[in-house]
Amino acid sequence: MSDVDRAEIKMEAIAYVHSCFREKFGTPRQAGLVPAALGRIDVLPEYSRPEAFAELQGFSHLWVLFIFHQVADTPWSATVRPPRLGGNKKVGVFASRSPFRPNSIGLSLVKLERMENHKGQIRLHVSGLDMIEGTPVVDIKPYLPWADQRDDACGGFAARPPETHQRISFSALAEQQLGQMQRGVQFKALICEVLQQDPRPAYRQKSDDRTEYGINISGYNVRWHQQDAVAEVFQIECLDASGPTG
Amino acid sequence: MSDVDRAEIKMEAIAYVHSCFREKFGTPRQAGLVPAALGRIDVLPEYSRPEAFAELQGFSHLWVLFIFHQVADTPWSATVRPPRLGGNKKVGVFASRSPFRPNSIGLSLVKLERMENHKGQIRLHVSGLDMIEGTPVVDIKPYLPWADQRDDACGGFAARPPETHQRISFSALAEQQLGQMQRGVQFKALICEVLQQDPRPAYRQKSDDRTEYGINISGYNVRWHQQDAVAEVFQIECLDASGPTG
Repeated sequence: MSDVDRAEIKMEAIAYVHSCFREKFGTPRQAGLVPAALGRIDVLPEYSRPEAFAELQGFSHLWVLFIFHQVADTPWSATVRPPRLGGNKKVGVFASRSPFRPNSIGLSLVKLERMENHKGQIRLHVSGLDMIEGTPVVDIKPYLPWADQRDDACGGFAARPPETHQRISFSALAEQQLGQMQRGVQFKALICEVLQQDPRPAYRQKSDDRTEYGINISGYNVRWHQQDAVAEVFQIECLDASGPTG
Repeated sequence: MSDVDRAEIKMEAIAYVHSCFREKFGTPRQAGLVPAALGRIDVLPEYSRPEAFAELQGFSHLWVLFIFHQVADTPWSATVRPPRLGGNKKVGVFASRSPFRPNSIGLSLVKLERMENHKGQIRLHVSGLDMIEGTPVVDIKPYLPWADQRDDACGGFAARPPETHQRISFSALAEQQLGQMQRGVQFKALICEVLQQDPRPAYRQKSDDRTEYGINISGYNVRWHQQDAVAEVFQIECLDASGPTG
């Protein structure tokens, strides 16, 4: 192996993500699991050339190649404990989509809702995303159904989507808080989809869990606790005056 | 936009591809188009840790994130002329899988045939590849059918696989040369699949094309010429004593 072989590969962000998710906790573990998750990909000036996005609107879905920026400085781990295996069994990092990889690069399949030219900036409005606010994007590619859909594919230990046993309820206070929001109906749907994924760490997913949790979604601290298979949202606190993204 | 936003992202190869394709000309324009295309992903010593690949064998297909190393120094182009549109119509680079991108990163979906531990080196034997010999790999991820298959997806101007009108014939000399090879039957199937894609540039794809072509596949110069919709292979010259890869 020569020095040339080990040459560093340099990339630059071409865009940044604006997401309803502000932190790793609660962010869906795969794109598409939370269809109501809205976000925007804001393309940097150098790449905001309308001709570079010509014909993109004909595609319903996009691949987004991005950097796991919040953990990019964390050393990679050869094994991970996927939540779906109860957090006990280890699998190889290359048999997972874990962020703790040798190169901190992620791959998300999002739905393209619409494309906007905002005063010269190309903005892609997307849904079903699993990326955090501020995620640097290194590439955008169209999803090609005939190439990317493989009906004969086997998904190993992750053959099916994660199971969701959760039911979601809202306290009177939480319902009232939602009622006062401009887009409360959409926000409630988003909260339900996020909590149905049961974001708790695997070791907490026991019937006697009495912990109170909070997730920052769209600038609101969504607080809930668990009652067996029911996640009850008891309060929704505004953290950010700018309101929901997307 | 701060300096932090524009910070360079650094990656390193974790593996290199050994491919039956040695040059851009003739390499399939998408993974999966040539199922007979065999190759191997040889993982570098630092990452050849069996535990990092545990459970990978349960997956039938892998995403390979790689560098278009042969064109990495070529400036990106905002528009490309996809061969499927006859080479006349332009589309945006982000609406295409063209290699001439701001970050020279590619995405291929390959079939995992088997995994091998060769004297401590992890080797992934794959098929359906569209990567060239020596391609640096930056990540390997499992294909998750429930997340990566989208039955409702629209593929814009590239909704269907490229049309293949080509029929393939072999001269008596070419048949004789195949007959002398150890894996001549497999090699013939590979040649047929490659030529069915009609690798000629779009502007050459005319009935009066009398050009003689040669593609380096697995160390053989496969020479053919076109007779209307028939590609006739007239000679197969050995270029490389090591013989076919894979």
